[in-house]
Amino acid sequence: MIFDKSAIQDMGRFERAEFINALTGPKAVYLIGSRHEEGHENLALFSSIVHIGANPPLIGIVFRPDTVRRHTLENIRNNKLFTINSVHPEFIDRAHQTSANYDEHTNEFDAVGLDKFYLDGIDVPFVKASALNLLVSYQEEYPIKSNGTHLVIGSIDKVVVDKALVAEDGWVDIFAIKSAVCVGLSRYGEATFLQKQDYARP
Amino acid sequence: MIFDKSAIQDMGRFERAEFINALTGPKAVYLIGSRHEEGHENLALFSSIVHIGANPPLIGIVFRPDTVRRHTLENIRNNKLFTINSVHPEFIDRAHQTSANYDEHTNEFDAVGLDKFYLDGIDVPFVKASALNLLVSYQEEYPIKSNGTHLVIGSIDKVVVDKALVAEDGWVDIFAIKSAVCVGLSRYGEATFLQKQDYARP
Repeated sequence: MIFDKSAIQDMGRFERAEFINALTGPKAVYLIGSRHEEGHENLALFSSIVHIGANPPLIGIVFRPDTVRRHTLENIRNNKLFTINSVHPEFIDRAHQTSANYDEHTNEFDAVGLDKFYLDGIDVPFVKASALNLLVSYQEEYPIKSNGTHLVIGSIDKVVVDKALVAEDGWVDIFAIKSAVCVGLSRYGEATFLQKQDYARP
Repeated sequence: MIFDKSAIQDMGRFERAEFINALTGPKAVYLIGSRHEEGHENLALFSSIVHIGANPPLIGIVFRPDTVRRHTLENIRNNKLFTINSVHPEFIDRAHQTSANYDEHTNEFDAVGLDKFYLDGIDVPFVKASALNLLVSYQEEYPIKSNGTHLVIGSIDKVVVDKALVAEDGWVDIFAIKSAVCVGLSRYGEATFLQKQDYARP
């Protein structure tokens, strides 16, 4: 079946959101840890993190300014440092719960029941249950004219991961840690390894 | 183990590429179909497609200007229309092969052995073996200062998918079609459904 522009426009708001969000999935989900300028911690689930480059190591995150997630964006703009933490099957429910519309003074670590840890001299919280933790610093930001979202570019400053997960060629075994993915707004899954391909030549 | 900035900088070029690319995975992979201004078709694999918004329906694609994939970017800039096509386990090898450094006049549909189809009055090719096909039109572009990549924003104009895959709430069952994911540059997998979460409330 072909869904054209008018068929998509005619969908209800939530129907269209599930439909369009599914088209770019499976999407890796991560918890972003940050700190409010008044001191309390914040934790929020994101599925819009994209690889920007390896040298220098950069990631991009798409932020919707009209959702609860703006707390994270405000914290990142103010504090410049934040953390990105992997999600695993045993706490998908708690990770999803961080997407509730808590007021900006709620500490979602406490609200959903996830433990944190800190690195010496760094004031942003990491998720203890995550097998992969990144410390990221805010670099720059692009407002997207088409719909008012924001692309934030972050520099990967530190990677916390078990050395046994890093292969000889540098690859990190994200399949082994069962890093969660989502399709649409409410369905979660995990990714399993199928095959390795050699560097392609004509 | 903590890999800090200097440890990452000290890695070899290919080691760092596998390491950093893995951190944002699992990433959905899609084939982008386009047409060169001289008429021939182009097909290339991308793992940097991100949801931008549902209303209007928008996606983002990160393009590296210094790779073979610039053929696709040039075609998209010239022609404005392109297609995004899902990849499935039975042709991951052929999809990966499109990433080889073919010259700009190579038609990768022919080079790797993937069939195409056309929609009436639309001059860009779709991948026949894909369970999900999107027709997308170029909207705008942001050069990323941090590393010279480009974020292209595209509007989803048409979605071709079996109606049986669309759930009552609008969701598209991307798990059922086994849409392929990659982690790093060379490892591919598939995503399997685990659980559905209700809309989160505080």
